[in-house]
Amino acid sequence: MKKGILLILSGFAGSGKGTIVKELLDKYDNYALSVSATTRSPRPGEKDGREYFFKTVEEFEDMIKAEELLEYARYVDNYYGTPAEYVEKMLKDGKDVILEIEQQGALQIKEKRPDALLLFVMPPSVDEVYNRLKGRGTENEETILKRMRQGAKEAEVIGEYDFLIINDDLDECVKRVHNTIQSAKYATFRNMDLIDDVVKGFGEFFNKH
Amino acid sequence: MKKGILLILSGFAGSGKGTIVKELLDKYDNYALSVSATTRSPRPGEKDGREYFFKTVEEFEDMIKAEELLEYARYVDNYYGTPAEYVEKMLKDGKDVILEIEQQGALQIKEKRPDALLLFVMPPSVDEVYNRLKGRGTENEETILKRMRQGAKEAEVIGEYDFLIINDDLDECVKRVHNTIQSAKYATFRNMDLIDDVVKGFGEFFNKH
Repeated sequence: MKKGILLILSGFAGSGKGTIVKELLDKYDNYALSVSATTRSPRPGEKDGREYFFKTVEEFEDMIKAEELLEYARYVDNYYGTPAEYVEKMLKDGKDVILEIEQQGALQIKEKRPDALLLFVMPPSVDEVYNRLKGRGTENEETILKRMRQGAKEAEVIGEYDFLIINDDLDECVKRVHNTIQSAKYATFRNMDLIDDVVKGFGEFFNKH
Repeated sequence: MKKGILLILSGFAGSGKGTIVKELLDKYDNYALSVSATTRSPRPGEKDGREYFFKTVEEFEDMIKAEELLEYARYVDNYYGTPAEYVEKMLKDGKDVILEIEQQGALQIKEKRPDALLLFVMPPSVDEVYNRLKGRGTENEETILKRMRQGAKEAEVIGEYDFLIINDDLDECVKRVHNTIQSAKYATFRNMDLIDDVVKGFGEFFNKH
Protein backbone atom coordinates (compact mmCIF):
# COMPACT_ATOMS: atom_id res chain seq x y z
CA MET A 1 0.00 0.00 0.00
CA LYS A 2 1.19 3.48 -0.87
CA LYS A 3 2.07 5.76 2.03
CA GLY A 4 -0.37 8.59 2.72
CA ILE A 5 0.25 12.32 2.71
CA LEU A 6 0.62 14.48 5.80
CA LEU A 7 -1.74 17.42 5.31
CA ILE A 8 -1.35 20.56 7.37
CA LEU A 9 -4.46 22.73 7.19
CA SER A 10 -4.49 26.29 8.50
CA GLY A 11 -6.66 29.29 7.88
CA PHE A 12 -8.02 32.53 9.28
CA ALA A 13 -10.62 32.34 12.02
CA GLY A 14 -13.91 31.97 10.16
CA SER A 15 -12.31 30.29 7.14
CA GLY A 16 -14.43 27.19 7.72
CA LYS A 17 -11.43 24.89 8.09
CA GLY A 18 -13.11 22.85 10.82
CA THR A 19 -16.07 22.16 8.52
CA ILE A 20 -13.76 21.32 5.62
CA VAL A 21 -11.96 18.72 7.75
CA LYS A 22 -15.29 17.22 8.84
CA GLU A 23 -16.47 17.00 5.21
CA LEU A 24 -13.22 15.36 4.07
CA LEU A 25 -13.53 12.72 6.80
CA ASP A 26 -17.24 12.16 6.00
CA LYS A 27 -17.01 12.06 2.19
CA TYR A 28 -13.80 10.15 1.55
CA ASP A 29 -12.33 7.11 3.25
CA ASN A 30 -8.66 7.97 2.73
CA TYR A 31 -8.41 10.54 5.51
CA ALA A 32 -7.59 10.23 9.20
CA LEU A 33 -7.33 12.94 11.81
CA SER A 34 -4.18 13.42 13.83
CA VAL A 35 -4.72 13.20 17.60
CA SER A 36 -2.84 15.75 19.70
CA ALA A 37 -1.17 15.19 23.03
CA THR A 38 -1.94 17.58 25.89
CA THR A 39 -1.25 18.07 29.57
CA ARG A 40 -4.69 19.53 30.27
CA SER A 41 -7.16 17.36 32.17
CA PRO A 42 -9.73 15.36 30.21
CA ARG A 43 -13.20 16.93 30.17
CA PRO A 44 -16.26 14.75 30.85
CA GLY A 45 -16.81 12.40 27.90
CA GLU A 46 -13.30 12.84 26.45
CA LYS A 47 -11.42 9.61 25.87
CA ASP A 48 -7.65 9.13 25.87
CA GLY A 49 -6.46 8.53 22.30
CA ARG A 50 -9.66 9.89 20.74
CA GLU A 51 -9.95 13.62 21.56
CA TYR A 52 -6.38 13.79 22.91
CA PHE A 53 -3.57 11.69 24.26
CA PHE A 54 -3.63 12.88 27.88
CA LYS A 55 -0.15 13.22 29.38
CA THR A 56 1.41 14.45 32.60
CA VAL A 57 3.75 17.44 32.33
CA GLU A 58 6.68 15.08 32.96
CA GLU A 59 5.58 12.68 30.22
CA PHE A 60 5.08 15.58 27.81
CA GLU A 61 8.48 17.10 28.55
CA ASP A 62 10.06 13.67 28.03
CA MET A 63 8.39 13.54 24.60
CA ILE A 64 9.85 16.97 23.78
CA LYS A 65 13.35 15.85 24.81
CA ALA A 66 13.07 12.60 22.85
CA GLU A 67 11.89 14.60 19.79
CA GLU A 68 8.73 12.54 19.64
CA LEU A 69 6.58 15.57 18.73
CA LEU A 70 6.22 17.04 15.23
CA GLU A 71 5.38 20.38 16.84
CA TYR A 72 4.26 21.66 20.20
CA ALA A 73 3.29 24.84 21.97
CA ARG A 74 2.35 25.97 25.45
CA TYR A 75 -0.96 27.81 25.93
CA VAL A 76 -1.65 29.31 29.36
CA ASP A 77 -0.55 26.47 31.65
CA ASN A 78 -0.83 23.53 29.29
CA TYR A 79 1.21 21.89 26.58
CA TYR A 80 -0.32 20.84 23.27
CA GLY A 81 1.56 18.92 20.60
CA THR A 82 1.46 16.41 17.74
CA PRO A 83 2.95 12.97 18.48
CA ALA A 84 4.97 11.84 15.46
CA GLU A 85 4.48 8.12 16.12
CA TYR A 86 0.69 8.16 15.75
CA VAL A 87 0.89 10.23 12.54
CA GLU A 88 3.58 7.93 11.10
CA LYS A 89 1.54 4.81 11.88
CA MET A 90 -1.51 6.14 10.02
CA LEU A 91 0.59 7.33 7.06
CA LYS A 92 2.06 3.82 6.78
CA ASP A 93 -1.48 2.43 6.81
CA GLY A 94 -2.00 4.48 3.63
CA LYS A 95 -4.13 7.17 5.28
CA ASP A 96 -3.81 10.83 4.39
CA VAL A 97 -3.41 12.37 7.82
CA ILE A 98 -4.99 15.77 8.49
CA LEU A 99 -3.56 18.17 11.03
CA GLU A 100 -5.70 21.25 11.61
CA ILE A 101 -3.17 23.53 13.19
CA GLU A 102 -2.20 27.21 13.52
CA GLN A 103 0.59 28.75 11.51
CA GLN A 104 3.45 28.52 13.98
CA GLY A 105 2.98 24.77 14.40
CA ALA A 106 2.52 24.36 10.64
CA LEU A 107 5.89 25.95 9.93
CA GLN A 108 7.57 23.87 12.66
CA ILE A 109 6.32 20.75 10.91
CA LYS A 110 7.35 21.95 7.44
CA GLU A 111 10.92 22.18 8.69
CA LYS A 112 10.90 18.62 10.06
CA ARG A 113 8.82 17.07 7.32
CA PRO A 114 9.42 18.73 3.94
CA ASP A 115 7.09 16.15 2.39
CA ALA A 116 4.13 17.52 4.38
CA LEU A 117 1.56 19.39 2.30
CA LEU A 118 0.71 22.83 3.69
CA LEU A 119 -2.66 24.25 2.78
CA PHE A 120 -4.07 27.61 3.79
CA VAL A 121 -7.80 28.29 3.53
CA MET A 122 -9.43 31.72 3.51
CA PRO A 123 -12.79 33.37 2.86
CA PRO A 124 -13.09 35.29 -0.45
CA SER A 125 -12.07 38.62 1.13
CA VAL A 126 -10.77 40.26 4.29
CA ASP A 127 -14.19 41.89 4.88
CA GLU A 128 -15.67 38.41 4.71
CA VAL A 129 -13.27 37.23 7.44
CA TYR A 130 -14.70 39.99 9.66
CA ASN A 131 -18.31 39.31 8.61
CA ARG A 132 -18.04 35.61 9.42
CA LEU A 133 -16.54 36.31 12.84
CA LYS A 134 -19.31 38.89 13.46
CA GLY A 135 -21.95 36.46 12.17
CA ARG A 136 -21.02 33.82 14.73
CA GLY A 137 -22.39 36.17 17.37
CA THR A 138 -20.25 34.48 20.03
CA GLU A 139 -17.51 37.06 20.48
CA ASN A 140 -17.51 40.74 21.36
CA GLU A 141 -16.01 43.40 19.05
CA GLU A 142 -12.76 43.53 21.01
CA THR A 143 -12.15 39.78 20.63
CA ILE A 144 -13.08 39.93 16.94
CA LEU A 145 -10.58 42.76 16.34
CA LYS A 146 -7.95 40.74 18.20
CA ARG A 147 -8.59 37.83 15.83
CA MET A 148 -8.39 40.19 12.84
CA ARG A 149 -5.00 41.43 14.05
CA GLN A 150 -3.92 37.80 14.33
CA GLY A 151 -5.19 37.27 10.77
CA ALA A 152 -3.18 40.26 9.51
CA LYS A 153 -0.02 38.64 10.91
CA GLU A 154 -0.91 35.26 9.42
CA ALA A 155 -1.56 36.81 5.99
CA GLU A 156 2.10 37.79 5.70
CA VAL A 157 3.20 34.16 6.00
CA ILE A 158 0.70 32.54 3.58
CA GLY A 159 3.51 32.30 0.99
CA GLU A 160 5.21 29.68 3.19
CA TYR A 161 2.28 27.35 2.53
CA ASP A 162 2.16 25.21 -0.61
CA PHE A 163 -1.41 26.07 -1.58
CA LEU A 164 -3.94 28.81 -0.92
CA ILE A 165 -7.55 27.81 -1.37
CA ILE A 166 -10.51 30.18 -1.24
CA ASN A 167 -13.58 28.96 0.63
CA ASP A 168 -16.31 30.77 -1.31
CA ASP A 169 -18.54 27.71 -1.63
CA LEU A 170 -18.13 24.85 0.84
CA ASP A 171 -18.73 21.93 -1.57
CA GLU A 172 -16.44 23.42 -4.23
CA CYS A 173 -13.80 24.16 -1.62
CA VAL A 174 -13.85 20.62 -0.21
CA LYS A 175 -13.46 19.24 -3.75
CA ARG A 176 -10.54 21.59 -4.44
CA VAL A 177 -8.83 20.61 -1.20
CA HIS A 178 -9.38 16.91 -1.92
CA ASN A 179 -8.09 17.15 -5.51
CA THR A 180 -5.09 19.17 -4.41
CA ILE A 181 -4.13 16.54 -1.83
CA GLN A 182 -4.63 13.66 -4.25
CA SER A 183 -2.67 15.40 -7.04
CA ALA A 184 0.17 16.15 -4.65
CA LYS A 185 0.77 12.39 -4.49
CA TYR A 186 2.04 12.47 -8.08
CA ALA A 187 4.74 15.05 -7.30
CA THR A 188 8.06 13.62 -8.48
CA PHE A 189 9.81 14.47 -5.19
CA ARG A 190 7.33 12.17 -3.41
CA ASN A 191 8.03 9.39 -5.96
CA MET A 192 11.81 9.14 -6.11
CA ASP A 193 11.61 5.40 -5.27
CA LEU A 194 9.30 4.83 -8.23
CA ILE A 195 11.63 6.82 -10.53
CA ASP A 196 14.59 4.72 -9.33
CA ASP A 197 12.57 1.59 -10.10
CA VAL A 198 11.91 2.85 -13.64
CA VAL A 199 15.62 3.53 -14.22
CA LYS A 200 16.42 0.03 -12.89
CA GLY A 201 13.60 -1.39 -15.00
CA PHE A 202 15.27 -0.13 -18.17
CA GLY A 203 18.56 -1.67 -17.01
CA GLU A 204 16.85 -5.04 -16.52
CA PHE A 205 15.13 -4.68 -19.89
CA PHE A 206 18.47 -4.29 -21.67
CA ASN A 207 19.88 -7.31 -19.82
CA LYS A 208 17.10 -9.33 -21.42
CA HIS A 209 17.23 -7.76 -24.93
CA MET B 1 -9.94 36.67 -15.96
CA LYS B 2 -7.29 34.58 -14.27
CA LYS B 3 -4.22 33.74 -16.35
CA GLY B 4 -3.92 30.14 -17.50
CA ILE B 5 -1.18 27.63 -16.76
CA LEU B 6 1.54 26.60 -19.18
CA LEU B 7 1.56 22.81 -19.20
CA ILE B 8 4.53 20.89 -20.55
CA LEU B 9 3.64 17.27 -21.21
CA SER B 10 6.32 14.68 -21.95
CA GLY B 11 6.42 10.93 -21.77
CA PHE B 12 8.02 7.77 -23.10
CA ALA B 13 7.10 6.65 -26.60
CA GLY B 14 3.91 4.64 -26.12
CA SER B 15 2.87 6.54 -22.99
CA GLY B 16 -0.31 7.69 -24.73
CA LYS B 17 0.47 11.38 -24.27
CA GLY B 18 -0.99 12.30 -27.67
CA THR B 19 -4.30 10.67 -26.74
CA ILE B 20 -4.27 12.36 -23.34
CA VAL B 21 -3.85 15.78 -24.98
CA LYS B 22 -6.70 15.02 -27.40
CA GLU B 23 -8.97 13.96 -24.50
CA LEU B 24 -8.14 17.10 -22.50
CA LEU B 25 -9.02 19.31 -25.48
CA ASP B 26 -12.23 17.34 -26.16
CA LYS B 27 -13.52 17.03 -22.58
CA TYR B 28 -12.72 20.42 -21.08
CA ASP B 29 -12.97 23.92 -22.52
CA ASN B 30 -10.08 25.47 -20.59
CA TYR B 31 -7.30 24.01 -22.73
CA ALA B 32 -5.58 25.25 -25.88
CA LEU B 33 -2.76 23.67 -27.82
CA SER B 34 0.47 25.50 -28.48
CA VAL B 35 1.34 25.85 -32.18
CA SER B 36 5.00 25.32 -33.09
CA ALA B 37 7.01 27.23 -35.64
CA THR B 38 8.99 25.29 -38.23
CA THR B 39 11.12 25.81 -41.30
CA ARG B 40 9.92 22.65 -42.99
CA SER B 41 7.53 23.01 -45.93
CA PRO B 42 3.79 22.68 -45.34
CA ARG B 43 2.34 19.31 -46.35
CA PRO B 44 -0.90 19.18 -48.35
CA GLY B 45 -3.82 20.27 -46.15
CA GLU B 46 -1.64 21.93 -43.50
CA LYS B 47 -2.54 25.53 -42.72
CA ASP B 48 -0.20 28.24 -41.42
CA GLY B 49 -1.07 28.99 -37.78
CA ARG B 50 -3.01 25.74 -37.32
CA GLU B 51 -0.58 22.79 -37.68
CA TYR B 52 2.48 25.05 -37.59
CA PHE B 53 3.62 28.60 -38.11
CA PHE B 54 5.64 28.11 -41.30
CA LYS B 55 8.82 30.22 -41.38
CA THR B 56 11.84 30.66 -43.63
CA VAL B 57 15.21 29.77 -42.12
CA GLU B 58 16.01 33.49 -41.96
CA GLU B 59 12.75 34.30 -40.15
CA PHE B 60 13.33 31.43 -37.72
CA GLU B 61 16.91 32.48 -36.95
CA ASP B 62 15.70 36.03 -36.38
CA MET B 63 13.20 34.66 -33.83
CA ILE B 64 16.04 32.80 -32.09
CA LYS B 65 18.16 35.97 -31.91
CA ALA B 66 15.23 38.06 -30.66
CA GLU B 67 14.54 35.38 -27.99
CA GLU B 68 11.02 34.98 -29.27
CA LEU B 69 11.06 31.20 -28.79
CA LEU B 70 10.44 29.39 -25.51
CA GLU B 71 12.53 26.48 -26.84
CA TYR B 72 13.77 25.26 -30.19
CA ALA B 73 15.71 22.41 -31.72
CA ARG B 74 17.04 21.41 -35.12
CA TYR B 75 16.06 18.00 -36.50
CA VAL B 76 17.75 16.85 -39.70
CA ASP B 77 17.59 20.05 -41.81
CA ASN B 78 14.70 21.83 -40.14
CA TYR B 79 14.12 24.00 -37.13
CA TYR B 80 11.21 23.44 -34.77
CA GLY B 81 10.35 25.75 -31.89
CA THR B 82 7.67 27.23 -29.63
CA PRO B 83 6.84 30.91 -30.25
CA ALA B 84 6.44 32.64 -26.88
CA GLU B 85 4.03 35.29 -28.16
CA TYR B 86 1.29 32.87 -29.18
CA VAL B 87 1.53 30.96 -25.88
CA GLU B 88 1.45 34.21 -23.88
CA LYS B 89 -1.63 35.46 -25.75
CA MET B 90 -3.59 32.29 -24.96
CA LEU B 91 -2.46 32.28 -21.31
CA LYS B 92 -3.72 35.87 -20.98
CA ASP B 93 -7.05 34.75 -22.47
CA GLY B 94 -7.28 32.41 -19.47
CA LYS B 95 -6.50 29.24 -21.40
CA ASP B 96 -4.33 26.47 -19.99
CA VAL B 97 -1.84 25.99 -22.80
CA ILE B 98 -0.58 22.49 -23.54
CA LEU B 99 2.83 21.86 -25.04
CA GLU B 100 3.47 18.22 -25.91
CA ILE B 101 7.22 18.25 -26.15
CA GLU B 102 10.29 16.08 -25.62
CA GLN B 103 12.47 16.34 -22.55
CA GLN B 104 15.20 18.62 -23.81
CA GLY B 105 12.70 21.28 -24.88
CA ALA B 106 10.75 20.81 -21.63
CA LEU B 107 13.82 21.58 -19.55
CA GLN B 108 14.69 24.61 -21.73
CA ILE B 109 11.25 26.00 -20.98
CA LYS B 110 11.44 25.26 -17.26
CA GLU B 111 14.52 27.46 -17.07
CA LYS B 112 12.79 30.36 -18.80
CA ARG B 113 9.38 29.90 -17.26
CA PRO B 114 9.61 28.56 -13.70
CA ASP B 115 5.82 28.88 -13.45
CA ALA B 116 5.35 26.25 -16.18
CA LEU B 117 3.96 22.94 -14.96
CA LEU B 118 6.01 19.94 -16.10
CA LEU B 119 4.22 16.64 -16.29
CA PHE B 120 5.71 13.28 -17.29
CA VAL B 121 3.45 10.41 -18.31
CA MET B 122 4.43 6.75 -18.41
CA PRO B 123 2.89 3.30 -18.81
CA PRO B 124 2.66 1.20 -15.61
CA SER B 125 6.02 -0.54 -16.26
CA VAL B 126 9.09 -0.57 -18.48
CA ASP B 127 7.96 -3.86 -20.04
CA GLU B 128 4.70 -2.15 -20.89
CA VAL B 129 6.62 0.65 -22.71
CA TYR B 130 8.15 -2.10 -24.89
CA ASN B 131 4.85 -3.96 -25.33
CA ARG B 132 3.02 -0.82 -26.46
CA LEU B 133 5.74 0.03 -28.99
CA LYS B 134 5.64 -3.59 -30.22
CA GLY B 135 1.83 -3.53 -30.29
CA ARG B 136 1.76 -0.56 -32.67
CA GLY B 137 3.22 -2.87 -35.30
CA THR B 138 4.62 0.10 -37.19
CA GLU B 139 8.30 -0.14 -36.26
CA ASN B 140 10.91 -2.87 -36.59
CA GLU B 141 12.74 -4.29 -33.56
CA GLU B 142 15.79 -2.12 -34.18
CA THR B 143 13.75 1.10 -34.12
CA ILE B 144 11.87 -0.07 -31.02
CA LEU B 145 15.14 -0.78 -29.18
CA LYS B 146 16.40 2.67 -30.21
CA ARG B 147 13.28 4.18 -28.64
CA MET B 148 13.81 2.08 -25.51
CA ARG B 149 17.39 3.40 -25.23
CA GLN B 150 15.98 6.92 -25.57
CA GLY B 151 13.47 6.05 -22.81
CA ALA B 152 16.26 4.84 -20.53
CA LYS B 153 17.95 8.23 -20.90
CA GLU B 154 14.70 10.09 -20.29
CA ALA B 155 13.97 8.04 -17.15
CA GLU B 156 17.01 9.53 -15.43
CA VAL B 157 15.62 13.04 -15.79
CA ILE B 158 12.01 12.43 -14.68
CA GLY B 159 12.86 14.00 -11.31
CA GLU B 160 13.21 17.38 -13.08
CA TYR B 161 9.50 17.28 -13.84
CA ASP B 162 6.94 18.44 -11.27
CA PHE B 163 4.65 15.43 -11.57
CA LEU B 164 4.83 11.82 -12.73
CA ILE B 165 1.53 10.29 -13.76
CA ILE B 166 0.99 6.64 -14.64
CA ASN B 167 -1.20 5.92 -17.64
CA ASP B 168 -2.68 2.57 -16.59
CA ASP B 169 -6.26 3.51 -17.52
CA LEU B 170 -6.84 6.31 -20.03
CA ASP B 171 -9.96 7.87 -18.43
CA GLU B 172 -8.40 7.77 -14.94
CA CYS B 173 -5.16 9.19 -16.28
CA VAL B 174 -6.89 12.08 -18.07
CA LYS B 175 -8.77 12.92 -14.85
CA ARG B 176 -5.52 12.82 -12.85
CA VAL B 177 -3.76 15.07 -15.35
CA HIS B 178 -6.70 17.51 -15.38
CA ASN B 179 -6.98 17.63 -11.57
CA THR B 180 -3.23 18.09 -11.22
CA ILE B 181 -3.25 21.06 -13.61
CA GLN B 182 -6.27 22.65 -11.93
CA SER B 183 -4.86 22.15 -8.41
CA ALA B 184 -1.54 23.66 -9.49
CA LYS B 185 -3.41 26.97 -9.91
CA TYR B 186 -3.78 27.20 -6.13
CA ALA B 187 -0.02 26.99 -5.52
CA THR B 188 0.95 30.00 -3.41
CA PHE B 189 3.91 30.86 -5.70
CA ARG B 190 1.41 31.35 -8.54
CA ASN B 191 -0.77 33.58 -6.32
CA MET B 192 1.63 36.10 -4.83
CA ASP B 193 -0.53 38.98 -6.17
CA LEU B 194 -3.55 37.59 -4.36
CA ILE B 195 -1.55 37.19 -1.13
CA ASP B 196 -0.35 40.81 -1.44
CA ASP B 197 -3.97 41.88 -1.87
CA VAL B 198 -4.94 40.02 1.31
CA VAL B 199 -2.16 41.72 3.28
CA LYS B 200 -3.29 45.10 1.89
CA GLY B 201 -6.90 44.16 2.61
CA PHE B 202 -6.09 43.78 6.32
CA GLY B 203 -4.34 47.19 6.22
CA GLU B 204 -7.44 48.79 4.73
CA PHE B 205 -9.65 47.01 7.26
CA PHE B 206 -7.74 48.53 10.16
CA ASN B 207 -7.95 51.98 8.56
CA LYS B 208 -11.73 51.63 8.76
CA HIS B 209 -11.96 50.03 12.26
